[in-house]
Amino acid sequence: MYPNNPENQRFSIVADVGGTNTRIALTTGAQIQQASVQHFANDKFNSFEQLLRSYLKSQQVISCESACIAIATAVNGSSVRLTNRDWLIDRDSIANISGAKQVKLINDYEALALSLNDIPAAQLTPLVEIKDMRHSPQTSFKKMVLGAGTGFNAAQLISDPENLNQQVNCAECGHMTLPITNLQELKLRDYLAARHSRASVERVLSGRGLVQLYQWLCTEKKLSARDLSAAQIAESACADDDPATRESAAIFCRFFARVAGDLALAYLPYGGIYLSGGVTRGLAPMLREAAFMAEFTAKGRQSQLMQSFNIQLITSDNTALIGCAAALPNP
Amino acid sequence: MYPNNPENQRFSIVADVGGTNTRIALTTGAQIQQASVQHFANDKFNSFEQLLRSYLKSQQVISCESACIAIATAVNGSSVRLTNRDWLIDRDSIANISGAKQVKLINDYEALALSLNDIPAAQLTPLVEIKDMRHSPQTSFKKMVLGAGTGFNAAQLISDPENLNQQVNCAECGHMTLPITNLQELKLRDYLAARHSRASVERVLSGRGLVQLYQWLCTEKKLSARDLSAAQIAESACADDDPATRESAAIFCRFFARVAGDLALAYLPYGGIYLSGGVTRGLAPMLREAAFMAEFTAKGRQSQLMQSFNIQLITSDNTALIGCAAALPNP
Repeated sequence: MYPNNPENQRFSIVADVGGTNTRIALTTGAQIQQASVQHFANDKFNSFEQLLRSYLKSQQVISCESACIAIATAVNGSSVRLTNRDWLIDRDSIANISGAKQVKLINDYEALALSLNDIPAAQLTPLVEIKDMRHSPQTSFKKMVLGAGTGFNAAQLISDPENLNQQVNCAECGHMTLPITNLQELKLRDYLAARHSRASVERVLSGRGLVQLYQWLCTEKKLSARDLSAAQIAESACADDDPATRESAAIFCRFFARVAGDLALAYLPYGGIYLSGGVTRGLAPMLREAAFMAEFTAKGRQSQLMQSFNIQLITSDNTALIGCAAALPNP
Repeated sequence: MYPNNPENQRFSIVADVGGTNTRIALTTGAQIQQASVQHFANDKFNSFEQLLRSYLKSQQVISCESACIAIATAVNGSSVRLTNRDWLIDRDSIANISGAKQVKLINDYEALALSLNDIPAAQLTPLVEIKDMRHSPQTSFKKMVLGAGTGFNAAQLISDPENLNQQVNCAECGHMTLPITNLQELKLRDYLAARHSRASVERVLSGRGLVQLYQWLCTEKKLSARDLSAAQIAESACADDDPATRESAAIFCRFFARVAGDLALAYLPYGGIYLSGGVTRGLAPMLREAAFMAEFTAKGRQSQLMQSFNIQLITSDNTALIGCAAALPNP
């Protein structure tokens, strides 16, 4: 069934459980079996266990070697509850269902960071052409991944020069203060804070954030907001077929650029910045417009430094699985 | 002359060149000779070379083994220009003056971070009593230092469990966006941006920032601002002898707490947060008031996480020298 498994090695499982979708695959060692990669909408399942059972059955796999599951929430301990749905992801339960002797749970941005040195070129596209590629030798092995999907987060990968050792710096960047700079943005901040007690970065930089931003803008402009999903707002904005979706997406991209710039100052990722996440990908054409780099580099006396960062967009939705495979527990 | 040098080892030099003052000392190996520690006001010298010559002469030292100089600016290459005065700090020139065979230049926050595992207890005081000391085993070796002095910055120290290997994550956090959340703060932001084209974190969180904050507040309140230095404003605020200095310092501390909280979300320093810097120390009594922790922990769904960070104040001005000694090039 899987051409990359000539010696009939036992499979391991890798999965990336997002807020909305789950990506899952089989590996032999750290090698993902491409034909085994599947996507599922979480809404169609009552639990991760049900999803996992269904997947293993469809793959005709009865027992696995090990498993590494990336989850879009802070991971601490042997079981994790998804924040936006009633799913408990539990190590013992996964071991029971899959037969895996070892099960590892990691944060989804930890998985993305662990993939950064191994992303195939086909899954990357440069955001802009870099004018001033300045690498500091001590620090060129620092990379950063950040992005907007169901929520927002970032992580840093620090590698040694030979790439033998890599370490991830996990974060909770979605909960940082939303960085506003003018009265219009303060109004948006107050609109969000009235609903959520405060306005964090991910109250704008997420799928739900884009929808609320659009609704707020329509209220401000005394337009009646259509009932659009984040994906529909992004599509309409990129097609430039509605001034309200377009302006909402432009404000979103401005915040995204500002936050990316602030995090670049915190992590100094001279080895590269990688943009991930479903909402990010949906807005890719707008992120390539000049306004993004103008805002990203607008850091006063550090503007020249800001121009030295290489920014790439992760075009695949499966990239975190590469990091999960790299993090699989040794058999 | 130096009791800790019984075998008459050759000295090395460590120095911390700030925007305003320079701390300098002799070491034998990585051991700082306490009697040799001296402070100088940079304004009294035309160049770092002049300061260094004068220091070596006063110490009756003709020739040194090696030198590590920490500088309050981004360090890249073999010579560095201080941003706020016309000083060029040059490796070759330091080698010529001191006889050092090897000279290392590092960023001042890199030096502070390198000191974090070795700060004597006498140089630390807890900011608050921690209620919920929750350590994540994988990450408890991450520490963060941040502070306000001539400028603002932060750095992260990542150590392995045996403390054999430590790595610093340098940053340029002073240039991140000033995180404002209400109309009063927006007015302050606009006042600063009118003078500096934008408002970064260090436009408030620095000595000059505190002075401008005070001047802005007096303008807002139609009071005539006194001609006070940052140290005088801090002293008056802590003594609570003037409503204008008191409120300025309270706003400063609120921004400091908010930025410290945001950076804690970016670095997750479960191993501890260390506050450094001259302005920070000047405001220490106010940082211990309840308002600081209230703002630091005000991160919505992450408020409980925020209560798990151990925050300590570095009470000594010489701590960066410990990091310089740890970073001295091997003879």
